[in-house]
Amino acid sequence: MLTLYYAPHTCSLASHIALEDAGAVYELKRIDFSKTEQQEPDYLAINPKARVPAMVTPRGILTETPAMLAFIAQSFPNAHLAPLNDAFAFAEVQAFNSYLCSTLHVAHAHRMRGYRWADDPAAITAMQRKVPESVGASYDLIERHMLKGPWVMGDAYTIADPYLFTIAQWLEADGVDPKRVPRVVDHRSRMLERPAVKKAVAAELQG
Amino acid sequence: MLTLYYAPHTCSLASHIALEDAGAVYELKRIDFSKTEQQEPDYLAINPKARVPAMVTPRGILTETPAMLAFIAQSFPNAHLAPLNDAFAFAEVQAFNSYLCSTLHVAHAHRMRGYRWADDPAAITAMQRKVPESVGASYDLIERHMLKGPWVMGDAYTIADPYLFTIAQWLEADGVDPKRVPRVVDHRSRMLERPAVKKAVAAELQG
Repeated sequence: MLTLYYAPHTCSLASHIALEDAGAVYELKRIDFSKTEQQEPDYLAINPKARVPAMVTPRGILTETPAMLAFIAQSFPNAHLAPLNDAFAFAEVQAFNSYLCSTLHVAHAHRMRGYRWADDPAAITAMQRKVPESVGASYDLIERHMLKGPWVMGDAYTIADPYLFTIAQWLEADGVDPKRVPRVVDHRSRMLERPAVKKAVAAELQG
Repeated sequence: MLTLYYAPHTCSLASHIALEDAGAVYELKRIDFSKTEQQEPDYLAINPKARVPAMVTPRGILTETPAMLAFIAQSFPNAHLAPLNDAFAFAEVQAFNSYLCSTLHVAHAHRMRGYRWADDPAAITAMQRKVPESVGASYDLIERHMLKGPWVMGDAYTIADPYLFTIAQWLEADGVDPKRVPRVVDHRSRMLERPAVKKAVAAELQG
């Protein structure tokens, strides 16, 4: 049994969808950010980073979306969520996911969580102002160079797809015109047609 | 044959060390940031992100340190650079590397590359001011919760080790007192005793 700690509207949705894709038996536990439950001692004992996602497994606790996605793909090989027997193709999937976590998600985080990197309110406002540009530039790269289509890696659906879908939920709020990235938006629409995605999205909104 | 595009004093050192650890046959190509070679069309054709590292392989080009490190470990299994047959243990390595790229390296980047996230010079100065705190907090977490010792994952040296070593090169310049993180500093010292690390460091300084 796996237990996924999540919060709605965060990147934990990527692992949630992947668990559905994998046909995994899992339990969801919601962390309420409005009550700062991520800072409570009980949760810090699970994830001292005070973030989601975290996943409790029979072997121990995992954090960090790219690592959790690869773990899900490797733990449920019959779901074919990554090219597990091809080191180069697997690295391409991982490179995409690494770009999402270290560049695109980070650019996005400057809109709501600028306090991580500056104290001055004017600086935090200045960061917010640049989000459409920095996030937009990341999406341009994905649109033009990285998203092979129809899925991120081409014909095969992989763990890169739920991760892009998850972050692309924030596209409009980040101030990026969807018309600028039609292939990303098309990918997002097609993801929403998948039963696993529908189920995960609905569960988080109900939770 | 593999070709690693690198720049001194950047995170490309991690992959460089891992290639040495693996006993790989590889060629180094230096990108001169002082001449903004990373923005030249020749290099953008290799890596449109205009960053290092990039690695040309017989199958194509890879970027993103965590993905390249896992690729090296998987491509040279006899070097035992990651627990390749244990999805949970592999995910722990990957979670550590993902934290480095998405949190610690990002916090560090606010010292020299704040222009990525704000245009206002005062905001960029405000970001620089917080680097000792944000980078320090990341190291506290590594020191107390993540670095098992003697190597990052415990008794076994893995691809997490050259990555931590690489980023820990910047500890003092980031304004973190080394006395605050004695286990990280001890790890850095022991890494420097390894012939592969010595060779990679020397090659980058000579290059």
